[in-house]
Formats: sequence, C-alpha cells, structure tokens
Amino acid sequence: MQDLSAIRIVLVQTSHPGNIGATARAMKNMGLSNLYLVSPKDFPSGVALGRAASALDVLDNAVVVDTLEAAIADCGLVIGTSARSRGIPWPMVTPEECGEKLVAACRQNSVALVFGREDSGLSNEELRQCHFHVQIPTNPAYSSLNVAAAVMVLCYEIHRAALKAEDARDAATEDDWDQPLSTVADMDGYMAHLEEVLTRIDFLDPKAPRQLMTRLRRLYTRIRPDRMEINILRGMLTAIQTHLDKAGNRADT
Amino acid sequence: MQDLSAIRIVLVQTSHPGNIGATARAMKNMGLSNLYLVSPKDFPSGVALGRAASALDVLDNAVVVDTLEAAIADCGLVIGTSARSRGIPWPMVTPEECGEKLVAACRQNSVALVFGREDSGLSNEELRQCHFHVQIPTNPAYSSLNVAAAVMVLCYEIHRAALKAEDARDAATEDDWDQPLSTVADMDGYMAHLEEVLTRIDFLDPKAPRQLMTRLRRLYTRIRPDRMEINILRGMLTAIQTHLDKAGNRADT
Repeated sequence: MQDLSAIRIVLVQTSHPGNIGATARAMKNMGLSNLYLVSPKDFPSGVALGRAASALDVLDNAVVVDTLEAAIADCGLVIGTSARSRGIPWPMVTPEECGEKLVAACRQNSVALVFGREDSGLSNEELRQCHFHVQIPTNPAYSSLNVAAAVMVLCYEIHRAALKAEDARDAATEDDWDQPLSTVADMDGYMAHLEEVLTRIDFLDPKAPRQLMTRLRRLYTRIRPDRMEINILRGMLTAIQTHLDKAGNRADT
Repeated sequence: MQDLSAIRIVLVQTSHPGNIGATARAMKNMGLSNLYLVSPKDFPSGVALGRAASALDVLDNAVVVDTLEAAIADCGLVIGTSARSRGIPWPMVTPEECGEKLVAACRQNSVALVFGREDSGLSNEELRQCHFHVQIPTNPAYSSLNVAAAVMVLCYEIHRAALKAEDARDAATEDDWDQPLSTVADMDGYMAHLEEVLTRIDFLDPKAPRQLMTRLRRLYTRIRPDRMEINILRGMLTAIQTHLDKAGNRADT
C-alpha cells in the first residue's frame, strides 16, 4: 500500500493522556505513524503508554509543539474536525472525502488532520487555519464523540481510501499502458525458453528441478510484463545462447 | 432516520470496564441503544460510567447474560467480528456490507453484532454461531484493534448505512422477504435434529465426526432459511425418522 507517512495526525491541547495513547494505537492499526501534539496537558504519561498497547513507537516519535501553527506550517492540505459548523460556513467534507483528499494529497505534500480539545473542540481561530472541515455524522441527540473515537473513524477512512486508491491504480495500469500486455502464450514461450537456458547453464537440474520453475513463473506472472518487455527478456536469453554457442565453437577448434 | 433498536451490540467476556463504557458512548453517538454483555468481568463499574459520558442510559439498560447463545437466540442475523479467518473459512463481509446487512435486516428481525474478548477475540465455537464474519481492514504489521475502537468503526458503518438507506431506499432482499427469518434457536434445533438423523443412518459417526457438522452448519447458515423453510427442513427429517421407525417395527414383527 501507498506510504502514508506524509499524513500527520494533530491533537490540540488534549487533556486526558488515555486519549493520546488510544490515538497512537488507532493510527498504527490504520498504517499511520506521524503524531503531533500541540500543548498536551499531560505528556509523556504512563496512562498514554498503557492505552497505546503496541503503538509505543508512535508515541516515542510524537512531535510536541506549542501552537497549531507550528504543527501545520509546512502542510499543503489541512483538514480540521468540527462537531458543527460555527461562525462563517467553511468548505465541508464527509469522512470518506476527507480520507480520499488526504491520501491523494500526501503523495506530494505533507498533510494534516487536526483534532480539538475533549471539551470544546477546535476554536474558530484554529478552524480558520484549515482548508476543509470534516464532520462525522452522528445521532443528533448525542453528537459528542470521544476524541480517540473520532481519530479511529477518520484513520479508518484514510486507510480505506488508501486501499481504494491502490485498487484504482491497479485498474489504471490495465487501461493506460502504452504496450499491449503479454499473453499467456507469450509467457509460456518465455518460460520454456528460460528453462532451456537454465538447464544449459546447470542452474536447473532437470532430474531434480524442485520448485524452481514454479517460483520463477510466479515471479514473472506477478510482474505481468507487456509485449515489448517479454521480447526484451527473450532477447536476453537468445543472447546468452548465442554466446554459449560461440564459446563452444571456440572450445571445439 | 430508521429505528435501529432491533440492532444489538454484544460484548463477550469483556475484561476492562472502560471498554464497556466507551462502547456505550460510541453506540449512542451512532444512534444505537441495545447493549448485551456476556459474562463481563467487571460490571457494573465506575470506570464504565466514566467512559460512557452521557450514554449512561445505554449502560443502565444493558442486558447481562451468561452465554452467547442467550444473547443471540432470537436473532435472525448474527455477524461476528474476527481479526483473521480461522478453521474452515466462513462467509465474510466488509465493515460497509456489515452495516448495510444489519440495517436492512433489522426492519423485520432482531439482529446482533458480536465482539470478542480483548486478548483473544471470539472462539471458533462462537464464530460458528454467526451467519457472517466481519473484518476491519488494518495495517498488517499491527492489526489488533482495541475492542471499543472496533465497536466505534462498525457502529459508524451502521449509522452510515442507515443514512444511505434513508437517502435511497434500496431494495434489499431482507426488506422484501415474505417470511420472517429463522432465528439462531431455530437453526440450533435443526442442526441437533439433523445430527440425530445422520447418526441414525450411519452417515455421521459420532466417534469420528470430523468437520461434517461444521460444514453442514456453514452450508445452512449461508442459505439463511426463513421460518417456513426451516419447518420444511425439519419436516423432512421427521419423515425420515417415521419411515425408519416403521421399517424397524416391520422388521421386529
């Protein structure tokens, strides 16, 4: 899967160290590693370590800063979490769109997803520093999510978006390639040719072939070479054979 | 939004009361109210109350039972959470599909989403009582989610599915079916009856049952028979028994 290390999770003035630990665990579960803490009330803390379980590396590498500005200054995209729209309306994204935007932008930029205080969230001033606001849909009768629970949901959506992007890229490879893919027959021809050469160079013992050819077939199948590439590969084999022939002739004379 | 009270969240042998409290909060945030606790280690507990925040009503109304069977006997659809597939493979759904299935089925049936122990999840025996298994995609290097975090993600998907269903009342099979689904108790009764008959006709050797009954349970679970169908299936078993009895009587006389 795509490298997600350019995505940072930023927690602003978190009061309860348990939420920092739970955030680290949720991040690592979802393939994220880059945690920024803006003026945490209680950190480092044994409580955070306990709740982080096996994500201690995320806590160890957490960057502690004094202001939100310091956490996001070098970011090309910043999305802030907001329980409700406040002050003047801001561009809003759904959790799904939030994941997609972060995953797309993190290929070329540092990007940040920002979470506010347990009791009061992000201030209007802080929300204005974000390009987008994201809101997790909730039961209107009880909309206040625990901050680590909100982190879990949005990291889950980031991970989901990364998996989807991977699928889409696989599909795009099929579509856009500049050469036709090699056929099964091409591959069979190549494998036969390869076997012949490997036998001749005593790399393969036909009497005890073990799994060698199977492993090689799996490897080349995974590459899915296009027509031109398979011609190149076969050309290399032919070149080896020609060379051996010549050497043989010389040895004979 | 659709009433989701027929969806119950079942926690099996939870060790840490904090996870029970966080589950209650996540449920209420996502519009769910129906919590079952199977042999919790420490409940009621002040720690659970603290983590539940304003979801005390969910804790107050939680149903405590001794066994998973007691929590799901009357359910028409049961989905169990599984970190990995174990034993023989079972029908799997994604978190998104899990939400959709529960929301669709809960219109006519009680349905359950089951979470296992913090350290070891659900047992194979428990997983076999579920119609589907759901797995939250994770970082392969650290796949162990906190149980309350898993509850949060799957309740979020339930809520998302309910919102989507509201937007576009999609025609799910569950919705249109003319008969109520068979319950877990119906299926248990059928499986016991089937085992009895198979033993009698020497198809099943109780001393060497191998995986036969598990495979048959998987097969019938996949069908998800309605009430009428399960009555037909049981009727067939009874007919076989009656026939064998008569033949036995004739042989005796």
